[in-house]
Amino acid sequence: MTAYEIILRKRDAGELAPAELEFMVDGFLSGSVADYQMSAFLMAVFFRGMTEDETESLTRIMLESGDSLDLSSVDGVKVDKHSTGGVGDKLSLIAAPVAAACGVRVPMISGRGLGHTGGTLDKLESVPGLRTDFPSDEIVRLVDEVGMAIVGQSPSVAPADRKMYALRDVTATIECVPLIVGSILSKKLAAGLDALVLDVKVGRGAFMGDIESARTLGLRLTATARRLGLPAVALLTDMESPLGRAVGNAMEVAETIEVLRGGGPLDVRETSLAIAARMVHLAAPAGDYEAALGAATRALDEGRGLEVFARFVEAQGGDARVVDDAGLLPTASIREPVTSERAGFVTAIDALEIGFASTALGAGRMTVDDPVDPAVGIEVVAPLGTEVAAGEPLAYVHGNEKARAAAARARVGQAFLIGDGRPEVRARLPEVLE
Amino acid sequence: MTAYEIILRKRDAGELAPAELEFMVDGFLSGSVADYQMSAFLMAVFFRGMTEDETESLTRIMLESGDSLDLSSVDGVKVDKHSTGGVGDKLSLIAAPVAAACGVRVPMISGRGLGHTGGTLDKLESVPGLRTDFPSDEIVRLVDEVGMAIVGQSPSVAPADRKMYALRDVTATIECVPLIVGSILSKKLAAGLDALVLDVKVGRGAFMGDIESARTLGLRLTATARRLGLPAVALLTDMESPLGRAVGNAMEVAETIEVLRGGGPLDVRETSLAIAARMVHLAAPAGDYEAALGAATRALDEGRGLEVFARFVEAQGGDARVVDDAGLLPTASIREPVTSERAGFVTAIDALEIGFASTALGAGRMTVDDPVDPAVGIEVVAPLGTEVAAGEPLAYVHGNEKARAAAARARVGQAFLIGDGRPEVRARLPEVLE
Repeated sequence: MTAYEIILRKRDAGELAPAELEFMVDGFLSGSVADYQMSAFLMAVFFRGMTEDETESLTRIMLESGDSLDLSSVDGVKVDKHSTGGVGDKLSLIAAPVAAACGVRVPMISGRGLGHTGGTLDKLESVPGLRTDFPSDEIVRLVDEVGMAIVGQSPSVAPADRKMYALRDVTATIECVPLIVGSILSKKLAAGLDALVLDVKVGRGAFMGDIESARTLGLRLTATARRLGLPAVALLTDMESPLGRAVGNAMEVAETIEVLRGGGPLDVRETSLAIAARMVHLAAPAGDYEAALGAATRALDEGRGLEVFARFVEAQGGDARVVDDAGLLPTASIREPVTSERAGFVTAIDALEIGFASTALGAGRMTVDDPVDPAVGIEVVAPLGTEVAAGEPLAYVHGNEKARAAAARARVGQAFLIGDGRPEVRARLPEVLE
Repeated sequence: MTAYEIILRKRDAGELAPAELEFMVDGFLSGSVADYQMSAFLMAVFFRGMTEDETESLTRIMLESGDSLDLSSVDGVKVDKHSTGGVGDKLSLIAAPVAAACGVRVPMISGRGLGHTGGTLDKLESVPGLRTDFPSDEIVRLVDEVGMAIVGQSPSVAPADRKMYALRDVTATIECVPLIVGSILSKKLAAGLDALVLDVKVGRGAFMGDIESARTLGLRLTATARRLGLPAVALLTDMESPLGRAVGNAMEVAETIEVLRGGGPLDVRETSLAIAARMVHLAAPAGDYEAALGAATRALDEGRGLEVFARFVEAQGGDARVVDDAGLLPTASIREPVTSERAGFVTAIDALEIGFASTALGAGRMTVDDPVDPAVGIEVVAPLGTEVAAGEPLAYVHGNEKARAAAARARVGQAFLIGDGRPEVRARLPEVLE
């Protein structure tokens, strides 16, 4: 067996045996398969795809390349959710405490923002004092005592994924379903879960632009997870426009608290509840989904989600007073409006443009080493469907630097489309893949 | 412009501008484009192909990455031939002196054998004393004084090709028409030619297994050569079975001399004459091909090709007495028959198996650093269509090591197919792409 033969077989549309995939992945990690062979192999996979068997093997091999979290000492059913990344996406921050308030144990391993998408860890770290780096035994303790934890990934988890992802990122093989599946699930399987809810974003601001490709990814994710013994459900959620009204780290935490208080934008509330309910339902699959949704809604409306959130913030070293006083979160020095040039209806808000505007302000990063400004972001005041007059504000840019704020204002202006008729607003949750 | 963007564009079936191809090729050579990016790019090219414009640009960029031979001081029309590689293929050794005897100047830059295919330089170096490494000024002098030279490629010619080929060789992107065209033509264009004859082999022992892919390659080669100002003709020649009866370095030189003496296998004589005649015709395209074929045939039959060959051997330091006494060439210590298990007709001789048997004996190399044994090889005594009795010899294995000879005999035995009816013998030269 040689790397050459394995590349050739995949190039010529062959199906690879588990031992062949292991040869490539483990060899790449140990250095016996060169990076230039791995990158050629990944490009061949991009064009030829992988069967379900291959995807399952790849995921298992990537999982077994590193350590796993042992949550067996924690009672209860451990359920996580994973999002493929969006703009204004604070659903994890709401769904996790709501599900935990319903008795689900939520050991959530999250990531940082890159490009136009935000990252849950960046958002959380805008809370003064809050930490996301904990050793395994601390994570187990947090889940046991608080019911949830949101932490960064240990470097010892799925090292094959880290090395492969870095290579894919510079060789244009990110957008490939079996490789995405292997990358997501190898890490999730390492977290000792009993079930998983997948939030596959679709639209301009998402990885998957159209519903068909989102469905393909969602189906392959759930099928592979189940083959590896992890019950999973995928929700396709709309990311054509940003979620809610706040885009930016501290601003999204503030919106999270609003929703957990029973207010906030309806799309954020409803999508968070749908995800929390799926987590609850997966934890007790004998019950019906409507009952799970009812339980999640009550947990939110009775303030039990907010209680768990406050305990979680405190347990991870954060200032829990932010729950009662959002003014304790960092704020930006500049707040400038973006106004409508004409009268009409907000027909579209391009999530990709808004995401890049937010990154331009400093809320996100273009490379993994960029620093992030917790205070800055975009505040949408005229969401989809709003009727506006000429000169009326559509959004406010919150910035800390004049030049960056000006650049962001221009991008935000381009993101808004003002039309003559009242538009039909797309459903945030068009499809569930059970 | 970044390597990532260029890989992405090609991956998504875009057409690359000359500046983008230059960025990749020159960057790869200088080290600013990583080898893992180049290998991913080459795999994307494998799947997406290249337009004629892209192929032309790629070839020019590879050519301009290195030095060219300046043959302007040599009078006459300079014509070379190039073969895509076969088994028993000694056509260069015959066509070059015959064309030179007709007044064509032949500055032939050749290669070494790899895998199952033989190499012209390896064959020539079986002649005691003969050298193939000459500096540019010596090559110019040889072509001027002898009318021909067959030499190795200077490392300063097309360094981009050398580095790209080495990468393709270990990442399974050799079999890709535009990359093959760039590799062949960048080196040929650097030799200061006026015209080029391309011998595209087709069949089991060839790079191109079927006539359609050989035709595709031949057409792209001639079209690209012409766009770059080099008149070219491609001959598709059959490589389902080995050419002639001798496979192995010194054994093929001996067969070359036989043919130049007016004897030898008819397929070798006719194909060599066809190539020599195309070279003569390209050198004087106003005349007609039949006249060129007549001139080449007379040069061979009157022994003028042999005279040039003897002068060429001597000029390159070889012992020209081999022309009169093939016994001066190295011979193997073992000669063992491979016999037919049954009576019938020789229906097929698998060129690939014969090539690998010859390499197993030591006549070829599996990696570029392997040494080559000049004496060993396969002698076919029952060519295609021969009627044989059970136990009658089909071929003899010439070896210098018992174990290797035994392994080669088994492979040679497998290469022969004995059938009941007299087979139709395929034409050696099915198609000419003018």
